[in-house]
Amino acid sequence: MTQRLRGVLSPVVTPFRKDYAPDAQRFVRHCKWLLAHGCSGLAVFGTNSEANSLSADERMTLLEQLVESGVPAAQLMPGTGCSALTDSVRLTAHAVKLGCAGVLMLPPFYYKGVPDEGLYRNFSEVIQRVGDDRLQLYLYHIPPVAQVPITLGLIERLLKAYPKSVAGVKDSSGDWNNTKAMIDAFGKQGFEVFAGSEVFLLRNMRAGGVGCITAGANVNPHGIDRVYRGWQSAEAEALQAGIDKVRQILQSQSSMIPALKACIAHYAADPDWVTVRPPLVEQTLEERAKMVSDLLAAGFDMPGIKH
Amino acid sequence: MTQRLRGVLSPVVTPFRKDYAPDAQRFVRHCKWLLAHGCSGLAVFGTNSEANSLSADERMTLLEQLVESGVPAAQLMPGTGCSALTDSVRLTAHAVKLGCAGVLMLPPFYYKGVPDEGLYRNFSEVIQRVGDDRLQLYLYHIPPVAQVPITLGLIERLLKAYPKSVAGVKDSSGDWNNTKAMIDAFGKQGFEVFAGSEVFLLRNMRAGGVGCITAGANVNPHGIDRVYRGWQSAEAEALQAGIDKVRQILQSQSSMIPALKACIAHYAADPDWVTVRPPLVEQTLEERAKMVSDLLAAGFDMPGIKH
Repeated sequence: MTQRLRGVLSPVVTPFRKDYAPDAQRFVRHCKWLLAHGCSGLAVFGTNSEANSLSADERMTLLEQLVESGVPAAQLMPGTGCSALTDSVRLTAHAVKLGCAGVLMLPPFYYKGVPDEGLYRNFSEVIQRVGDDRLQLYLYHIPPVAQVPITLGLIERLLKAYPKSVAGVKDSSGDWNNTKAMIDAFGKQGFEVFAGSEVFLLRNMRAGGVGCITAGANVNPHGIDRVYRGWQSAEAEALQAGIDKVRQILQSQSSMIPALKACIAHYAADPDWVTVRPPLVEQTLEERAKMVSDLLAAGFDMPGIKH
Repeated sequence: MTQRLRGVLSPVVTPFRKDYAPDAQRFVRHCKWLLAHGCSGLAVFGTNSEANSLSADERMTLLEQLVESGVPAAQLMPGTGCSALTDSVRLTAHAVKLGCAGVLMLPPFYYKGVPDEGLYRNFSEVIQRVGDDRLQLYLYHIPPVAQVPITLGLIERLLKAYPKSVAGVKDSSGDWNNTKAMIDAFGKQGFEVFAGSEVFLLRNMRAGGVGCITAGANVNPHGIDRVYRGWQSAEAEALQAGIDKVRQILQSQSSMIPALKACIAHYAADPDWVTVRPPLVEQTLEERAKMVSDLLAAGFDMPGIKH
């Protein structure tokens, strides 16, 4: 078992060429920038990575390119949860084999209203079929998008059956009480809770969580990491307020992923970054101009992003 | 272009072995039974097929096995719409190459609240990348599950851009007014509307639709086909009432797919049929006994299903 990841993880946005093919070169560059500017790990192939708009083969190829380019697998927590059990097993086994620190697993998300027993079987099958002690599985609770939740009862059952493999959770419910309940129920057993947004980072650290895995870390890893490192300091509240301001600008956009990409395009002076894969649509020029103006007015910067 | 499919299509349930591997032999047998007992076509890999619990490779392999076993491709309308554009293109091109009559395409369903522009780009990219005049694309509107809708505005735009490829729709909204609106808006342009449940079949035929693609056809193809063939007859209402009764029993179960499989398992005297892939869970013995008793009381049978 490698060292468990803690701190600030970014669900890295995936750059595409104009023909929607993944752009490995820009991807590697952005991953290295993130690790150099505050991210302790990279939750590649998350929701904000448009991972569910990529085929399993595309994801595996990109992950290999990342590791071959020198990004340490020990800092990677790729998303590997798919609708199809067989895809989830394949991606998870691949990530473990590459030496990734962990995997972040969505529940199967097509069928709605499924019983916890069915979700238990899904995760249980993945763990058993991968059959590798190195597997560190983080459950991914994001009901606003996946619609299929990871309940406390499901976590309890999985932890009981697989205490060494079930490592933690990313809670993207947006409901702090739920995050707190997860920490309170399972934190003492070594189950590690990441907040799903930096707006909960300080509260999460104070309650016994281990960090955050957040879209905002794509553009503000330095700011968010300062809150993580300084959560016990006198400036903690002020630092938190600072990252909240940036998050609020991003979150007020019509769609988060195009906003993150437009933000990188602007600060990196690299316009091709704006491309998103269907069904998403890039920001309009007006939306982008307004967002950038708001970010500049807030004193926001992305140091070292320009190549 | 092959003859367009009309009448009763079944989204064929996919049998699994105990280890959740697809069971090609049982699948072929059920497909042949359906075609011999009232189905004019097979919408394999639909929602009720647990298609989204299968990998792209598993779907392609099963489709090839079906065609190789003598099921005519001209009677097949496989589901090929995935979350990932690249998967949708791959499955669609494969189905067209095999000579399938059409494909039934879900919108990309992971990201919610996406703009019609993004959905338009998704379908447009698939049509252009497949680049084959034989493609007959049926849009699959199932908001209760996919959560991402196919709006009238989207259909209008796609029909205008690709009048020869965009063939029709399956409306599984459960909202008859929506189905009627689709027929009224686009029926005259040759856009063919299938009801998503047999309960709307008679209404759909009277309004100018072309049939239904319905879960219930997995077990009651003969009954539903009688409504289709007899919709202008004096018995139409009575026939419709008969299939409604069976549908109501199936729909009152806690989950439709396990119910369909348990029904086949009972009437075929083939208990292994009950297996579903996670995240679904099979019926309990009590649920199954009650359902079968209700079906028997309603005089329901599946002639010729026993081997």
